[in-house]
Amino acid sequence: MSVTQAIPGQTRIGWIGTGVMGRWMCHHLMQKGYKATVYNRTKEKAKELLDAGAAWADTPRGVAEKSDVVFAIVGFPADVREVFLGKEGALAGSKAGNVLVDMTTSEPSLAMEIHAAAKAKGVASVDAPVSGGDVGAKNAALSIMVGGDADAVEAVKPLLECMGKTIVHQGPAGAGQHTKMVNQVLISSTMVALCEGLLYAYKAGLDVDTVLKSVSVGAAGSKCLDLYSPRLLRRDFEPGFYVEHFIKDMGIALAEAKRMNLALPGLALAHQLYVALQAQGHGRKGTQALLLALETLSAVKR
Amino acid sequence: MSVTQAIPGQTRIGWIGTGVMGRWMCHHLMQKGYKATVYNRTKEKAKELLDAGAAWADTPRGVAEKSDVVFAIVGFPADVREVFLGKEGALAGSKAGNVLVDMTTSEPSLAMEIHAAAKAKGVASVDAPVSGGDVGAKNAALSIMVGGDADAVEAVKPLLECMGKTIVHQGPAGAGQHTKMVNQVLISSTMVALCEGLLYAYKAGLDVDTVLKSVSVGAAGSKCLDLYSPRLLRRDFEPGFYVEHFIKDMGIALAEAKRMNLALPGLALAHQLYVALQAQGHGRKGTQALLLALETLSAVKR
Repeated sequence: MSVTQAIPGQTRIGWIGTGVMGRWMCHHLMQKGYKATVYNRTKEKAKELLDAGAAWADTPRGVAEKSDVVFAIVGFPADVREVFLGKEGALAGSKAGNVLVDMTTSEPSLAMEIHAAAKAKGVASVDAPVSGGDVGAKNAALSIMVGGDADAVEAVKPLLECMGKTIVHQGPAGAGQHTKMVNQVLISSTMVALCEGLLYAYKAGLDVDTVLKSVSVGAAGSKCLDLYSPRLLRRDFEPGFYVEHFIKDMGIALAEAKRMNLALPGLALAHQLYVALQAQGHGRKGTQALLLALETLSAVKR
Repeated sequence: MSVTQAIPGQTRIGWIGTGVMGRWMCHHLMQKGYKATVYNRTKEKAKELLDAGAAWADTPRGVAEKSDVVFAIVGFPADVREVFLGKEGALAGSKAGNVLVDMTTSEPSLAMEIHAAAKAKGVASVDAPVSGGDVGAKNAALSIMVGGDADAVEAVKPLLECMGKTIVHQGPAGAGQHTKMVNQVLISSTMVALCEGLLYAYKAGLDVDTVLKSVSVGAAGSKCLDLYSPRLLRRDFEPGFYVEHFIKDMGIALAEAKRMNLALPGLALAHQLYVALQAQGHGRKGTQALLLALETLSAVKR
C-alpha cells in the first residue's frame, strides 16, 4: 500500500460529522486550501461549510468516492462503525491509496477492526481522537493522539497540523484511542476530586473563591480546576463537554481495562457517579455538573 | 486581648518541631533577624538551628516562656494537642498577648479547641497549615492557609511571609485547617487518576513517556502529573510526602465530612487504596507509590 503526502489545493479531503468540533476542524483545512466534500446526518449543520465552498455528498460512501483522505468525527462507536464500515460507509467508496482518519473518541478495538478491513482493500486507516474541546477545535489548538502505520500517519500529518498544536504518533492502529482513554481516565477522577473539594469547602462554611487562592497554586492545582472552578462558582453547568459523551468514553475505558485484566476502581466510581448524574436528568449538561450529583447524594440544598 | 505586630530583632519566636519542614521554616525566620527558641522531641534534629544561634528549651512550655509567638509543625493531631494543650505544652508557658501558630496539618475542631483555650488566657491562636512540601519550605515558597482572628493573623503575617509566597486568611479558627482539607481532597482523587491513567497506558502497551506528551497539555494536565509522572516513569517511590501522613490527612477530612453530613465517595476510595498501600508495607514511601497498590490489585508484575 502506498499513500501520498497531503498537498494543499491538490489533496481532496472528505469530512463526515460537522458538529461543534467537526465544523471548525474542516473549516481550518478549507482555509489552508484543501477542497472538501462533506456529509452530516443533519444537513443543516453543514450549511456554513457548504456556504464556504464545500461540496455535499448524500452518504459517507459518496464522500469517499470524491476524496483522497476521509475524516470523521461523529458520536458513538456505533456511528463510527456505520460511517466507515457500513454499506454506505466510507470504506465502500474508497480505493487503494486512500486514507481514512477517525477523530471520534471511540473503541481501540474498533480502530483495529477498521484498520484491518481497510488494509484488505489497500486503504490506510488512522485513529486520531482529540482533546481540547470546542475551544481547541476553534483555535486549531487540539491535542491529537494518533494511531496507525507510520507512512499513513506521515501522509496525513500536514492535515492534522491544520487542526491541532500537539500531534503525537502513539503507535499502531488503536494506539490513538488508547491514549485518549488514558486522557479520560486522568480527567474522570480529577473531576471527582474537584467537585468533592469544592463541596467540602462550601459545607465547611469557607469562601470558595478565597479557598481557590490558596489551593490552586500548589500540588492540588489542575487544568480541570482552572477550567471548571470559575463555572462551578457561578453554577454554570452549560456543556463544554457533554456528560453523556463522557459516560460513553469512560464505558469504553472500563471495557478495555476489563479486557486487559485491569481493575480501575477510581474510574469505575467516577463512571457510576456520572451515570447517577445522567439518571438525575443531566446527561446534556457539561461534565462539571458532577457537582450536582454529589449535592444530591448528600441532600445539599443550594 | 491585644497582640503586637511582629518586628525583626524584637519579636521573640519559638519553634516546636524541627523536622524536614520545620527546620527550613524556622531557618528563614532566623535569617530575617528573629531570635528563636526551639524544641524538638529528638534534639539532634534541631542541631543545625542550634548551631545557627537558636536557643534550646526542654519543653514546649519552656519555649513559650521565652517567646512572643510560638510556632509548631509536628506530626499527628495527638502531637498538636500535647505540644499546645499538654501540661508541658506551649499554652501553659504563654501569657496574655502571645500568639500560638499551629502549622501542622491537623483537625479543624482541634484548632478551634486550642483557640478557645488560648482565648481564656488572653492568648491568641492561629491555624496555618501549609502546602508545598519540603521544597516549598526550603525555598520559602509555601502556600499558607490561615484561620484565626483578624488581629492575630495580621500580627503574624510578617512572620508567615518569611516562609511562604501565598498567605491567605481563610476565616476564623479552623478555617486554615479546613482549607488544607480541601487541598488534600483535591489531591487524593487526582493521585488515583494519575496512577490509574499511567497503569492503563502501560497495560495497553503504549510508551508512557510518549502518552504524557499528548495528555499533559490538555484538560488532563495537573500539578500532580507534572510532579509525579517523571518519578513514576523511573519507578522512584522516595518520599516527598509520606503515605502515612497523607492517610492521616484524608482520615481527618473524612471525619470532618461525616460531621458535616457530607458523603465524599472519591475521597473515601482514595483513602482505602492508600490504607491498602500502607498494609502492603509502603507507609514510609511517597504518595506516588499508590501505583504499587493498583499494580498489586490487578496482579501486574513489573
